[in-house]
Amino acid sequence: MDRNNMDYSALAKQVMSRCDELGRISQSDENLDRRYLTAEHKQANQLVGGWMTQAGMKTWQDEAGNLWGRLESKTPNAPRYLLGSHLDTVPNGGQYDGMLGVLTPISLIQSLNEQKVELPFHIELVGFGDEEGTRFRSTLLGSRALTGQWPKEWADVQDEDEISLRDALEKFGLDFDKVPNAKISTEDLLGYLELHIEQGPVLEEENLPVGVVSAIAGAKRFDITVQGMAGHAGTVPMPLRQDALCAASEMILAIETVAQQNDIVATVGQINNRPNGVNVISGETQFSLDIRSEFDEQRDEGLAQILAKMDDIAKRRGVQLSNKQTHAAPAVHCDPQLQNILSSAIEKTGFKPRVLPSGAGHDAMAIADICPVAMLFVRCDKGISHHPAEAIKVEDVRVTLEVLNHAIQSLPTELNA
Amino acid sequence: MDRNNMDYSALAKQVMSRCDELGRISQSDENLDRRYLTAEHKQANQLVGGWMTQAGMKTWQDEAGNLWGRLESKTPNAPRYLLGSHLDTVPNGGQYDGMLGVLTPISLIQSLNEQKVELPFHIELVGFGDEEGTRFRSTLLGSRALTGQWPKEWADVQDEDEISLRDALEKFGLDFDKVPNAKISTEDLLGYLELHIEQGPVLEEENLPVGVVSAIAGAKRFDITVQGMAGHAGTVPMPLRQDALCAASEMILAIETVAQQNDIVATVGQINNRPNGVNVISGETQFSLDIRSEFDEQRDEGLAQILAKMDDIAKRRGVQLSNKQTHAAPAVHCDPQLQNILSSAIEKTGFKPRVLPSGAGHDAMAIADICPVAMLFVRCDKGISHHPAEAIKVEDVRVTLEVLNHAIQSLPTELNA
Repeated sequence: MDRNNMDYSALAKQVMSRCDELGRISQSDENLDRRYLTAEHKQANQLVGGWMTQAGMKTWQDEAGNLWGRLESKTPNAPRYLLGSHLDTVPNGGQYDGMLGVLTPISLIQSLNEQKVELPFHIELVGFGDEEGTRFRSTLLGSRALTGQWPKEWADVQDEDEISLRDALEKFGLDFDKVPNAKISTEDLLGYLELHIEQGPVLEEENLPVGVVSAIAGAKRFDITVQGMAGHAGTVPMPLRQDALCAASEMILAIETVAQQNDIVATVGQINNRPNGVNVISGETQFSLDIRSEFDEQRDEGLAQILAKMDDIAKRRGVQLSNKQTHAAPAVHCDPQLQNILSSAIEKTGFKPRVLPSGAGHDAMAIADICPVAMLFVRCDKGISHHPAEAIKVEDVRVTLEVLNHAIQSLPTELNA
Repeated sequence: MDRNNMDYSALAKQVMSRCDELGRISQSDENLDRRYLTAEHKQANQLVGGWMTQAGMKTWQDEAGNLWGRLESKTPNAPRYLLGSHLDTVPNGGQYDGMLGVLTPISLIQSLNEQKVELPFHIELVGFGDEEGTRFRSTLLGSRALTGQWPKEWADVQDEDEISLRDALEKFGLDFDKVPNAKISTEDLLGYLELHIEQGPVLEEENLPVGVVSAIAGAKRFDITVQGMAGHAGTVPMPLRQDALCAASEMILAIETVAQQNDIVATVGQINNRPNGVNVISGETQFSLDIRSEFDEQRDEGLAQILAKMDDIAKRRGVQLSNKQTHAAPAVHCDPQLQNILSSAIEKTGFKPRVLPSGAGHDAMAIADICPVAMLFVRCDKGISHHPAEAIKVEDVRVTLEVLNHAIQSLPTELNA
């Protein structure tokens, strides 16, 4: 099979210009905002569905509003691979997070079709309707529909305009009660590949266009409250204070230190202080903790250290400490065989196959419930995502297309058990 | 002169019950809130003015809405002392902060009159209309009128309902253009004595009912901004972060440490973080700094250490630091001779004359511009003020009345130069 007739540069330009075009479909006049089951979601499905059809794919929309395109193999009883990513965005988002992983395969598949490349498996490409979870607060609604994990209670979950998920589906032309039909068969399903911008600075730091994901980090989140004693900023001597904000500050630094020492990431992103007056000693400080690792044990070991240090700080300072866990998700490990295929494909392009964990969640997390998954990361400018400044290089898309082509053409018709 | 005919216990009960009664005059149904130039200010002046009259004082209201009562000496060409504190409160305030310093002298003066005690000086007792500055944001409006420090621009300063100070005065029956007439003569004015709750925990900690104020701390305030780099909480490894909140936390701890080491007070009471999302590394953190000492040099030395440490932290962490000074007031030192008189008076009651600085501002700060000042602090429950839980003991008021009587009857008709 000759892989050298591909004009990767032209394809990369096509991908970039389609990202621009798709990025103009927004429910906001001011920035990119495209949420699940909106008129703009429908418009995006139509636009991308058209490109899938042009690429020679059979297209359809499933019962959860996910967009599908299928490149049919001529091999009798061929197995199939899924490729995919999402078409929704966060408010004030970027135009590559998710979309790149749908549009890049379309351009490649069009070229494979034009070159009459025969594959011994079907490729099904899916553009998920919801990954970000912005509208109904639960993430991965699209991919969870494929795995049959939509609890019935979700029918009544409301968006910020008090529209229920059931009503939103109906307005979109869908039926909540038929969403279970979106569950896909795992028979002959070999694996899932997802291509996504890194959303972090590692590849840029190491001057690499792409990388292979080892695992999607497991995350735990907590709301932490420090109760001290409010008081007058002028009249309470330092030794008599129980300053909640000072205690919280010491805890935030302890979290940072433990994360550094344990090679995990831990973030205090949110802090709310009371009474928050210029001349009042803080009486209560609440803050969030988000802690992640590709290795659940390593994360939990770090977490235990953090909790112990926070207890010590609270005791020493005479403040009350409480915490509430608000989220827990285990790490998802990518399939070693698929990882190797991606690494080899990268090596063929002359780049070092850097393997790195994903700290962010992805559709692959949900799909891992039903088949082996793997992910290819693409460098993004300064690691920025979820922001209009999200940017990638056309040259990196060129490399990505080449890697993806090498990888697809190396995929086996059977994976090791 | 016999000082033992005073029934201090009965007087203390009167003071406490009058504090209760005055504390019911509020512009809010839910809590105590009595601001400058409101109908409730007028009502308070009428109530307290009535008590002054009962006590045998000549009463009047000045051009700034301050309430006056005068105990006239029969001595020809007698000099005069001012006594006073304020009658306004913060929203959701307590009923002793300010009021205690007006009502205690009234009860004492009534008793002096009843016992026909002759003093070789006039006493003028003033209930200031504004000390807290809640309504027009500038503090000490009442006492600054006595010292002639009302800039013309204040006419147009507005409250939260967009009522100007000029209009508020007019509605109260006063005239902004005549406020300069509230300036008092300093001829024959020997000094100013103020009695106030401590608003801090020092006297309670040392089990003392009263204390003598050495100085009112000078304060400086700053708005500090740390500019880091926002990022995804999952995807940016710890060593690549410029977390504004972590940097701010380290600075907050540095501020605390420097204050402890330099025997000053420094408080970060307010913090605002952006984007303040659970899963986003903080990009910008703003916080306030309030730093005080009874010794301006000591405060400024501490401040210099804080600013240097913050610079070091910012440089090491690769974040941008900026600060804006929003307030500066020098310390006001109480008159040594008047302090000694108060200390001796305390000793006569059998208590240790504890001398302590005031971290909070008081009317005495303004009056210090025109004459020697001194202050007597009264223990308050847990150091709480500016809150409905503000509380004092009737027994401490008893001691206060005794101390005040001893002090007044020891005041000289001439102070050392």
